[in-house]
Amino acid sequence: PSSKLPEVGTTIFSVMSALAVEKKAVNLGQGFPDFDCDPALPAAVTRAMQEGLNQYPPMPGLPAFRQQISDKIVSLYGQRYDPATEITVTAGATQAILTTLLACVHPGDEVIVIEPAYDSYIPSIRLAGGVPVLVSMELGEQGYSIPWEQIKAKISDKTRLLMLNSPHNPTGFVMTAADISALCEIVRGTRLLIASDEVYEHMVFDGMRHESLACYPELAARSYIISSFGKTYHVTGWKVGYVAAPAALMAEFRKVHQFNVFTVNTPMQAGLTHYMQNPAPYLELSGFYQKKRDLFRQGLQKTRFRLLPCAGTYFQSVDYSAISSLSELDFARWLTTEAGVAAIPVSAFYQQGKESRIVRFCFAKQDATLHEALHRLAAL
Amino acid sequence: PSSKLPEVGTTIFSVMSALAVEKKAVNLGQGFPDFDCDPALPAAVTRAMQEGLNQYPPMPGLPAFRQQISDKIVSLYGQRYDPATEITVTAGATQAILTTLLACVHPGDEVIVIEPAYDSYIPSIRLAGGVPVLVSMELGEQGYSIPWEQIKAKISDKTRLLMLNSPHNPTGFVMTAADISALCEIVRGTRLLIASDEVYEHMVFDGMRHESLACYPELAARSYIISSFGKTYHVTGWKVGYVAAPAALMAEFRKVHQFNVFTVNTPMQAGLTHYMQNPAPYLELSGFYQKKRDLFRQGLQKTRFRLLPCAGTYFQSVDYSAISSLSELDFARWLTTEAGVAAIPVSAFYQQGKESRIVRFCFAKQDATLHEALHRLAAL
Ligand SMILES: CSCCC(=O)C(=O)O
Ligand SMILES: CSCCC(=O)C(=O)O
Repeated sequence: PSSKLPEVGTTIFSVMSALAVEKKAVNLGQGFPDFDCDPALPAAVTRAMQEGLNQYPPMPGLPAFRQQISDKIVSLYGQRYDPATEITVTAGATQAILTTLLACVHPGDEVIVIEPAYDSYIPSIRLAGGVPVLVSMELGEQGYSIPWEQIKAKISDKTRLLMLNSPHNPTGFVMTAADISALCEIVRGTRLLIASDEVYEHMVFDGMRHESLACYPELAARSYIISSFGKTYHVTGWKVGYVAAPAALMAEFRKVHQFNVFTVNTPMQAGLTHYMQNPAPYLELSGFYQKKRDLFRQGLQKTRFRLLPCAGTYFQSVDYSAISSLSELDFARWLTTEAGVAAIPVSAFYQQGKESRIVRFCFAKQDATLHEALHRLAAL
Repeated sequence: PSSKLPEVGTTIFSVMSALAVEKKAVNLGQGFPDFDCDPALPAAVTRAMQEGLNQYPPMPGLPAFRQQISDKIVSLYGQRYDPATEITVTAGATQAILTTLLACVHPGDEVIVIEPAYDSYIPSIRLAGGVPVLVSMELGEQGYSIPWEQIKAKISDKTRLLMLNSPHNPTGFVMTAADISALCEIVRGTRLLIASDEVYEHMVFDGMRHESLACYPELAARSYIISSFGKTYHVTGWKVGYVAAPAALMAEFRKVHQFNVFTVNTPMQAGLTHYMQNPAPYLELSGFYQKKRDLFRQGLQKTRFRLLPCAGTYFQSVDYSAISSLSELDFARWLTTEAGVAAIPVSAFYQQGKESRIVRFCFAKQDATLHEALHRLAAL
């Protein structure tokens, strides 16, 4: 019989990383740092393994770890989640997203997705039997914005869930208080759930604040809030994230989670628990990445790429229409092969592959890597 | 709206482990060792982390790790899987099972499950939109057997997949060459796929051999073969497993896998790769666990429990009807609370909670733990 996901190929991140390796390009494609984590973190994992913490943790995660996560959320965003019933540790944010959708979306339910969107959202909705309903961000002089009126117009009795992502991959857009107001107004009186992908929560620039849905009780009451330790602690390969949600929503999540991964790597959970007890290192992350953003943007200003705004995340989008008329995928391939710099075509974040002549660079790289990339890009 | 899995509560393994901790019982419930892994294994993970292997691995797993897995399968079972396209590393076997079902089962497709069955199978089939079709193992004088004629009778055009598990949890049943013949005959000429859960592959006793479906090309051609490093290397908390399948089947698996967990913990993969280069320690696992089985069975013979056969796995089932007329769940709770030994009710492995007055003990424990449990059980 036919494929369950006939339209799906290999995720663009794998495709471009493989091409980058093959062509020895500077890899500014897939989002991951090319520098290492704080050595205190592996050291804490090593201690956990040496202490014999190598068997199954409790299904929702180590209790002390869930407590730390709860403490972090309440201190930063004010919402108190009960670690026993409202926090679950996941094998990364992607697993959290699929699990949320499998838990909430019944066959035929509609799920609103704002494009461009991380490439797992739509296939995950389909696997849950749901129907993705797409709304495109608007791209104006000031950069991207969310068309709340259009979203409102798409909400019906069939709408089960709204997928949100701020700070936003790939655009670097960050929701403001005005977005939150519009969101509150739209969902009030509906039965809509929200899955809020906040994996870049600790990377917001120029003094902006991350508007976690956990800051707003009326939103938190209907939301699965998803984050990732991989992005925050420079360990994307460890595959540890979490979900926070009110107990009734979390109960449904855990029913699926326990039959998906059952639970998450014990030594990594124990190591992260220990590490988080130190003065929270993520508090400096925005400053750290803002410097890299500024370095990268300054360099790009000397090229023929047109910079789009970047208020958060470790991604910088650029318009390349002054350089090439290739399609985004072809341009990204060409850039990797010929210019020696890998990027991600933003068209990969649109179901219909919308072409805007925009590619995304990841600046979570050593300054030397960014300089080398800029050197190569300047030659175009 | 209603729950996606209305009939599902918390998995029995979590329930009984929590009760065991609360009551300070000897925990022979959930399947995990109470002894540690070989220290060379954490040491290899530590080295990987120190070498900076902390970012995303390739989506299907580290190439060297997949090569090792392929080498192991070909040397033990004769089937050659291409590491590039036919092996994928998973976050444990449970994730492999859900992902296989999501990838293969279309809404309305039937999936045959042989009960008693690991408790994730049926909810995972439902999440994929499939319809579980149940067949019960027969329990006779010689122990459990698979009723192949009944399975044959249930196969129709609607049947998409057959779930198999040998060595079998919870019964300790191990498929023989006669089972394989029956299986071959049944599937020949059908379009049936097989998901073969072989996580206890290295725990078969009394000189029996594990009949991996990878020994039989005509079966391997339609099978997803699933295994787990957690069981084999005494690291159930590391959550690393794998799937082997022909390229066309694996392509569908990976479509879902990349949007489920995307990939699996890099340091654990690297550590396991290094560790597997040494003379394969799993080759001694059957002998190791056979000694524990024999110790445990000898002790139980002095109690009023009636022993069922145990040809593989680290589980021993017993009939307690000479001791109590409680339901299995109540007896397991009573045993944990009053006798101080946690067990798993085998009724939890039947969708309708079939009562046979049988509970399952896990003997993957230090000899001292087994002696203490036997001491407590002898008092009944
Ligand atoms: C899961 S691989 C992709 C990492 C990432 O989030 C991105 O590059 O957008
Ligand atoms: C996933 S927790 C259960 C471990 C196990 O396989 C069992 O006890 O049967």
